[in-house]
Amino acid sequence: MKNFSGIHSSVLIGDGVKLGRNVTIGPRSIIYDNVEIGDDCRIGADVILGEPNSAIYNDGDNYSNPVLRIGKASIIRSGSILYAGSAFGARLETGHRVTIREGTRAGENFRVGTLSDIQGNCEIGNYVRFHSNVHVGQGSVIKDCVWIFPYVVLTNDPHPPSNHLVGVTVESFAVIATMSVILPGVVIGTDALVGAGSIVNRNVAAEDVVVGNPARRVASIHDIKSKVDGTNVYPWRLNFDRGMPWEGIGYEAWRDAQ
Amino acid sequence: MKNFSGIHSSVLIGDGVKLGRNVTIGPRSIIYDNVEIGDDCRIGADVILGEPNSAIYNDGDNYSNPVLRIGKASIIRSGSILYAGSAFGARLETGHRVTIREGTRAGENFRVGTLSDIQGNCEIGNYVRFHSNVHVGQGSVIKDCVWIFPYVVLTNDPHPPSNHLVGVTVESFAVIATMSVILPGVVIGTDALVGAGSIVNRNVAAEDVVVGNPARRVASIHDIKSKVDGTNVYPWRLNFDRGMPWEGIGYEAWRDAQ
Amino acid sequence: MKNFSGIHSSVLIGDGVKLGRNVTIGPRSIIYDNVEIGDDCRIGADVILGEPNSAIYNDGDNYSNPVLRIGKASIIRSGSILYAGSAFGARLETGHRVTIREGTRAGENFRVGTLSDIQGNCEIGNYVRFHSNVHVGQGSVIKDCVWIFPYVVLTNDPHPPSNHLVGVTVESFAVIATMSVILPGVVIGTDALVGAGSIVNRNVAAEDVVVGNPARRVASIHDIKSKVDGTNVYPWRLNFDRGMPWEGIGYEAWRDAQ
Repeated sequence: MKNFSGIHSSVLIGDGVKLGRNVTIGPRSIIYDNVEIGDDCRIGADVILGEPNSAIYNDGDNYSNPVLRIGKASIIRSGSILYAGSAFGARLETGHRVTIREGTRAGENFRVGTLSDIQGNCEIGNYVRFHSNVHVGQGSVIKDCVWIFPYVVLTNDPHPPSNHLVGVTVESFAVIATMSVILPGVVIGTDALVGAGSIVNRNVAAEDVVVGNPARRVASIHDIKSKVDGTNVYPWRLNFDRGMPWEGIGYEAWRDAQ
Repeated sequence: MKNFSGIHSSVLIGDGVKLGRNVTIGPRSIIYDNVEIGDDCRIGADVILGEPNSAIYNDGDNYSNPVLRIGKASIIRSGSILYAGSAFGARLETGHRVTIREGTRAGENFRVGTLSDIQGNCEIGNYVRFHSNVHVGQGSVIKDCVWIFPYVVLTNDPHPPSNHLVGVTVESFAVIATMSVILPGVVIGTDALVGAGSIVNRNVAAEDVVVGNPARRVASIHDIKSKVDGTNVYPWRLNFDRGMPWEGIGYEAWRDAQ
Repeated sequence: MKNFSGIHSSVLIGDGVKLGRNVTIGPRSIIYDNVEIGDDCRIGADVILGEPNSAIYNDGDNYSNPVLRIGKASIIRSGSILYAGSAFGARLETGHRVTIREGTRAGENFRVGTLSDIQGNCEIGNYVRFHSNVHVGQGSVIKDCVWIFPYVVLTNDPHPPSNHLVGVTVESFAVIATMSVILPGVVIGTDALVGAGSIVNRNVAAEDVVVGNPARRVASIHDIKSKVDGTNVYPWRLNFDRGMPWEGIGYEAWRDAQ
């Protein structure tokens, strides 16, 4: 049994589904109507793709499932639920039991960890990394190569409960450490670093390090030395390349070649 | 496949189950013994209703599953697990993968978001709203029209680990923002607002706004002006009606008609 | 249906699986290759044991699933996923939808709550208790009789994202209350108590109580009096025995008999 290949006999597949070549789907997954899956995707057990959005409960027989597009060579681990009405670039990789609602647009090489909960109607760039259990409110905009760690919440309601949703923006290369909350409308600048457990209630400038409740600037990222060898560690893109488009060649060489 | 109707052929149904009219149950859900489901309920895939409580591991063949009652017109999304021995009023609505243990008593129109974890032996009023990933300890009492946002924890053990459980009480119309912890025995007053990331270690008076670790009073809710248009935003029940019993008529008119 | 016994007909079982006597496995669970399950284990519905690790996506047909060992008399609740390549002593007990990755070594009587997420490559002692939604980073070392409460994160990357992982160590009998973060490399001393919502950025001495962001010492555990009856409550092992090896005889008598 170890290497499932092809589509397991227990998989349920709706109308209008387009499957690329060499797609694997594990036991008991459900592919609802109008899902498009690129070549070479590997989809685990108990996955639901194209979950109907809540309009189905009101529209009944008139409901038509919006398209869900999954780019080629994606890996979707068991128990994940991706709603209809989103689009993901190539090489999406999810952990287990991820939930992603409608209106999510993500670029290439998006990785999203176990139990993460993306509320939909948001934009996610290329090479974005969410660790486990990241919660993204509607209206969030996350640029390229952003890292977000476990139990981070991007909020959107300045006066809960209200009808005024104002999403968070996270600029490219920013890092948000575990258990931080970003309050509605806040912009986290390019290369900025939000320390663990921060409650961020105002904008963070590019390259700033903030910590605390409420979060306040404590340093520039250029001030941070490695606890291992004393060298500069930020901007991280100069020192870390695993899974990034500059892997093996270095960020600057890659950038210059763009 | 888009509109499942009726009971999917893969659903497992135990003894003593009572199904109302026009109930939909998605693929592979399990309805254990003695579950009672009201009319017009829509139950997703991979749902478990009437999960046996832990006594089954000790009592073996003598175990009898307590009744689980689900009120009419409820929506239970895929992957949710509701234990035997609880009761929910009409129009319960859950997100995905919610867990609710035995001894939970909830009123009408309770909405509980994806991944929320209710530990049981607790009381929940009418029109209560939990966003995703809310954790409610045993012994909690939550009155009507309370809002609780993601990653909030209601605790109950003043000296962990101990055998003295003292639940939290949240009075009607109170709002607890994301990533806050309410310590054992604390009472959150009517209309009070707990800001994001607060650790609340003493009672919060009605209409107070508290923030911080430990949380301290910073304002009255009447002091808070909208960042959008400068008007008063709290008590929220005067300004927000979506899904509330006063929707379309206003809180005061509704209250006066009670 | 109430008492499943034996192996449900829908269970999928791989090659090289060893099942002890009197094992129960609920509907639709998947037991991948090379899983070894001890006598008297009770495994719920929708469980995945021996989930292949990520090497399968690269090694393809050459991939061989590492052994997963589950000790006797374990209870694994529905929806949990345990990767191949870990080992658990007798009487493991999980909540629902737990995820435990490869390289986890746990002793006897490990209890891990609903939605907890253990990232693997870690050591866990005997009689350890994780409540719901505990996140354990790779490289963590957790000694005997440790208690960790909901939404606690044990981190491991001092400069995220980096390739330098430095795990947390939690010494025996320590208690970490809800919503706390332990930063990389920190050691939590024997019998220490970390208060709710703490961000712990340096070592905590044995028997110290720390709280806050950043966490600082506020007391010795011997200073804490019960809010119920005014007596000393810590070290908790002198006052609490439910589920512990000294249950019914007291900690000191048990220790003296070792």
